[in-house]
Amino acid sequence: MGVVVQNIQRADKEVVEALGKCGVATVHEAQGRKGLLASYMRPIYPGARIGASAVTISVPPGDNYMVHAAIEQCQDGDVLLIAPTSPCEDGYFGDLLATSAQARGVKGLIIDAGIRDVRDLTEMNFPVWAKRIFAQGTIKASLGSVNVDVVCANAFIQPGDVIVADDDGVCVVRKDEAEEVLKKAQAREANEEEKRQKLADGVLGLDMYGFRQKLTDMGLKWV
Amino acid sequence: MGVVVQNIQRADKEVVEALGKCGVATVHEAQGRKGLLASYMRPIYPGARIGASAVTISVPPGDNYMVHAAIEQCQDGDVLLIAPTSPCEDGYFGDLLATSAQARGVKGLIIDAGIRDVRDLTEMNFPVWAKRIFAQGTIKASLGSVNVDVVCANAFIQPGDVIVADDDGVCVVRKDEAEEVLKKAQAREANEEEKRQKLADGVLGLDMYGFRQKLTDMGLKWV
Amino acid sequence: MGVVVQNIQRADKEVVEALGKCGVATVHEAQGRKGLLASYMRPIYPGARIGASAVTISVPPGDNYMVHAAIEQCQDGDVLLIAPTSPCEDGYFGDLLATSAQARGVKGLIIDAGIRDVRDLTEMNFPVWAKRIFAQGTIKASLGSVNVDVVCANAFIQPGDVIVADDDGVCVVRKDEAEEVLKKAQAREANEEEKRQKLADGVLGLDMYGFRQKLTDMGLKWV
Amino acid sequence: MGVVVQNIQRADKEVVEALGKCGVATVHEAQGRKGLLASYMRPIYPGARIGASAVTISVPPGDNYMVHAAIEQCQDGDVLLIAPTSPCEDGYFGDLLATSAQARGVKGLIIDAGIRDVRDLTEMNFPVWAKRIFAQGTIKASLGSVNVDVVCANAFIQPGDVIVADDDGVCVVRKDEAEEVLKKAQAREANEEEKRQKLADGVLGLDMYGFRQKLTDMGLKWV
Amino acid sequence: MGVVVQNIQRADKEVVEALGKCGVATVHEAQGRKGLLASYMRPIYPGARIGASAVTISVPPGDNYMVHAAIEQCQDGDVLLIAPTSPCEDGYFGDLLATSAQARGVKGLIIDAGIRDVRDLTEMNFPVWAKRIFAQGTIKASLGSVNVDVVCANAFIQPGDVIVADDDGVCVVRKDEAEEVLKKAQAREANEEEKRQKLADGVLGLDMYGFRQKLTDMGLKWV
Amino acid sequence: MGVVVQNIQRADKEVVEALGKCGVATVHEAQGRKGLLASYMRPIYPGARIGASAVTISVPPGDNYMVHAAIEQCQDGDVLLIAPTSPCEDGYFGDLLATSAQARGVKGLIIDAGIRDVRDLTEMNFPVWAKRIFAQGTIKASLGSVNVDVVCANAFIQPGDVIVADDDGVCVVRKDEAEEVLKKAQAREANEEEKRQKLADGVLGLDMYGFRQKLTDMGLKWV
Repeated sequence: MGVVVQNIQRADKEVVEALGKCGVATVHEAQGRKGLLASYMRPIYPGARIGASAVTISVPPGDNYMVHAAIEQCQDGDVLLIAPTSPCEDGYFGDLLATSAQARGVKGLIIDAGIRDVRDLTEMNFPVWAKRIFAQGTIKASLGSVNVDVVCANAFIQPGDVIVADDDGVCVVRKDEAEEVLKKAQAREANEEEKRQKLADGVLGLDMYGFRQKLTDMGLKWV
Repeated sequence: MGVVVQNIQRADKEVVEALGKCGVATVHEAQGRKGLLASYMRPIYPGARIGASAVTISVPPGDNYMVHAAIEQCQDGDVLLIAPTSPCEDGYFGDLLATSAQARGVKGLIIDAGIRDVRDLTEMNFPVWAKRIFAQGTIKASLGSVNVDVVCANAFIQPGDVIVADDDGVCVVRKDEAEEVLKKAQAREANEEEKRQKLADGVLGLDMYGFRQKLTDMGLKWV
Repeated sequence: MGVVVQNIQRADKEVVEALGKCGVATVHEAQGRKGLLASYMRPIYPGARIGASAVTISVPPGDNYMVHAAIEQCQDGDVLLIAPTSPCEDGYFGDLLATSAQARGVKGLIIDAGIRDVRDLTEMNFPVWAKRIFAQGTIKASLGSVNVDVVCANAFIQPGDVIVADDDGVCVVRKDEAEEVLKKAQAREANEEEKRQKLADGVLGLDMYGFRQKLTDMGLKWV
Repeated sequence: MGVVVQNIQRADKEVVEALGKCGVATVHEAQGRKGLLASYMRPIYPGARIGASAVTISVPPGDNYMVHAAIEQCQDGDVLLIAPTSPCEDGYFGDLLATSAQARGVKGLIIDAGIRDVRDLTEMNFPVWAKRIFAQGTIKASLGSVNVDVVCANAFIQPGDVIVADDDGVCVVRKDEAEEVLKKAQAREANEEEKRQKLADGVLGLDMYGFRQKLTDMGLKWV
Repeated sequence: MGVVVQNIQRADKEVVEALGKCGVATVHEAQGRKGLLASYMRPIYPGARIGASAVTISVPPGDNYMVHAAIEQCQDGDVLLIAPTSPCEDGYFGDLLATSAQARGVKGLIIDAGIRDVRDLTEMNFPVWAKRIFAQGTIKASLGSVNVDVVCANAFIQPGDVIVADDDGVCVVRKDEAEEVLKKAQAREANEEEKRQKLADGVLGLDMYGFRQKLTDMGLKWV
Repeated sequence: MGVVVQNIQRADKEVVEALGKCGVATVHEAQGRKGLLASYMRPIYPGARIGASAVTISVPPGDNYMVHAAIEQCQDGDVLLIAPTSPCEDGYFGDLLATSAQARGVKGLIIDAGIRDVRDLTEMNFPVWAKRIFAQGTIKASLGSVNVDVVCANAFIQPGDVIVADDDGVCVVRKDEAEEVLKKAQAREANEEEKRQKLADGVLGLDMYGFRQKLTDMGLKWV
């Protein structure tokens, strides 16, 4: 504990942003159905979506000292990711920290704990995905670490990994898999467009995907 | 398991739609305070309200194969209702399935599990009431059944039963009680309008309902 | 049980309203990080914020008889605060009670249980902070009390205490501490404005607050 | 509401008891993996196991009046099964009711709510599977029904259905399927004994079940 | 914050112990169904029961500094009662603190957070009622207070109040009501003994309490 | 997915067993308060404690195919550790699998899902720490992996890492830190014995640790 790692690898910025545009569900599928954070991680307002590189923060419960140290490590296109070392719903982060983060180009916050000043953050257009909305203040008494490996909402995350977040929740992509995952995600999107049109025209998935025969073979009875 | 029931009884379509307009709270009261699904069933966006006939789907945990089979059974004015056989928060349903369902006139989805593609579903105006928002993908490996009796979010539901859903949650009305419940619900609404006006004018419920005397008789003390 | 206390002390009305404008996070900090209700108390729609004097209601589980008795005790600038004597998520309160309360100048409702008619309440602009949204109806069979001490969502609240509620949740301020807490809250706000500007200009909290040196002294390593 | 059904069908008593000896996991599998009540239904002490016929009780939240009416309907080999109409954790049942039930040959209690007097019930050897242990008292103000269809802990249960309960939880068997399920359960048990011996001798399931080849065919790599 | 109150009032020691023997369910009823702590407060081993005077401790989340200060304030027949100012499940207390407390005659611990060293505490016969069992260590960085009013697991508790705890959970009795509550509890117990005998002999509660007639009058139908 | 890693590194067997004897709380502290699995991981019976090397299993929700593949990879002194890729409470494991595992010297099971056959497992003295006890059966349809990195109950675990589990829960120690952690844990234990004796003799922690002065310096008031 007590380390700030200053130089981290990030994925290519265009790749990161493109992943954000693909969205959580597509990216999760594209990388083989992995990387989702727990479903209790919810956005504080609807409609936000980001693709950004994680600056990770391992914090003691109820202590936000290290968040200040982390902001210095951020650059344009990053997202802060806060993981307490013990379950906690205190409000580590509010509008002042968001102002500081936004000034450095930070795209938003992922926090496995509480968030406060929701009204201000919404007005600032600073999106947050959090476990709770809770105004409980924190102290500044103990050290934690910045840019170390963390487990956040049951997902393992390394500094510089890509965070994709939208109304569906949060997904992590390993930074060295980002480019390949993006290709698969974009292929998936292209492929879906055609299907969407057929389904809108009334073609059934049963027929389009050939499921009718397979289900019959498995023993499904229509009665 | 492994049955698709193709012909189900539904309540009269005008009755079903009229129940939807009465809303969950009124319908629940009108039928003697029964039929509510668990309070964790929440809409993915505010303002939606539907009255529709249930096409029920009993699914294995994490397997959405049968949803495809169910869509074929839907007609205009139906709602899909998905109940896993074991607790699950995976995202069984997204924008492609919604496109297909909407093409058949399906009004929305009730699912005691997860939903994904929330942003798209919101734009499509396809309302969903779900236990969780979660992007976790599902597989297609096992059979389930369509249009069989299910327990969904602690309520017992039969195919063709009427589903009323709005910002207050979800309520089920037995299809053969639908007409009678509608009459009671509409009577209730008519009755409430008059009360609302009096209360808005400052008349107290204590006086309007005669509660002051009853409470005094029960021993309530004003000090 | 079975008592309605008719004359309660309230804090000065201007103070109460000014506390509401400071908001939950600021007021909570200003009074020494105390007074928050549990984080499961959420507003039924975004954007509402109130400062109001609590008319407290101790109710049996699933019985809303006393809410009617409580409304008579309300005056302009009050908020109803309902605490069941046993955990309950039933819908004690809907649009009729809200109409009656609003006619007396009540600013909103805090309830450690369920709320219903959310659509109507939203249209009426009557804000509610609740544990659940649930349409389950209640009975009128047992007495409770109005304007007695209660524990609501893990906070101790006395009649006439100030309730501050916004998107961040709910906070209680003792009525006899209201004025002092307001002063501290306003001082805090004034102080924050200046900081916000500096942070927006790119000054780091590490430097502005002198944290860099302190963290180094505590042993933090930059690597 | 407000009905006590006096004559219900039960499955054959020997069948019911034999199902109890098979246990929850075996019976659940034997009937095609259905019938489990939610996992939050836990025994108040370890080691109990029963097979019994359900006398169902639909109760208002926090009101145990109907439990008294239900006991009269019980006969030797029955189990009481209490399902509130709204989520509740109050303690509907304690040592006095258990004494009365035990005097009529009741084998235990399944309750989707709270239980109290756990110490006494343990000494009496009266097993209970409950959602909570909670001493909160209940009232006697409203009617419910005895021996009607209920949903209890997310399972649909009809009067006279067979309840199997042990350290693994609770499972329901339709009364008219009881005999067939018993046969399958006993066949399953017989079959398991042989397997158990082989596994104890060190034979791998991979080989005994032929999984090694199937997994390889599916693409599993040993590296 | 930051106060240790050294002289507190306690109820008469014999009264306190006698309340412990009555048990949680009886005491809760005797005082008008109030005083229960939340049902998540569970004993770490079965069979313990205590009646003791509360030495209350208000602690910051994750910081057990004040527990040490509290032990000095304990005398024979006390119970420690720890309430964090924000939700927390860290393990504030283990076998060393228990050894120290037991040396001063402390009967056990009530904690709205985590407990650890459960094996040792069980061997020491030092009972604990806690929200969680969790080994997470705490720090010693901030002040709290000893013997101040607290809210613990949704109950309001003042220093010196009587804590009754057993397998059913935890109940608080105001210290100045202890004697009267004891009388009512003992009367209740005496009264129950006679009823228990009748019920064991097969007399129905329906008849013994006169419920049959009342239920019929309310409209209950036997069919 | 779909990989079984056959050769993994384990820590020295004596070190692993010695860590088990130190227990969860001590080991967690000795390694700097890290490594705990979530507090919902509870033993199925009291009194068990193990130190063992993890054979990790990444499984699809509701599918226990890979558990069979994993058992072959186990050797004496190992513990199975099952982590589903999506939240699940199905019963992946029962007495047959336990028999097979025990035949290979496996010390127990850690599972972030459900367990069944609790009665048999208890009689077999095969300890399990699980999220739920639930009899729900699983299928064998999809591949997972054995001996890959997993996140289990919010902790990151690599194959061969040391698992310490007892009544306090579960803790992981990196295999290459095992020896050093053991030394610190044993030093901690030796140190605690002396303190325990002093505290048992009535010496206060306030004095023994020098806290009285520190608390006074921080501003604590004794009144």
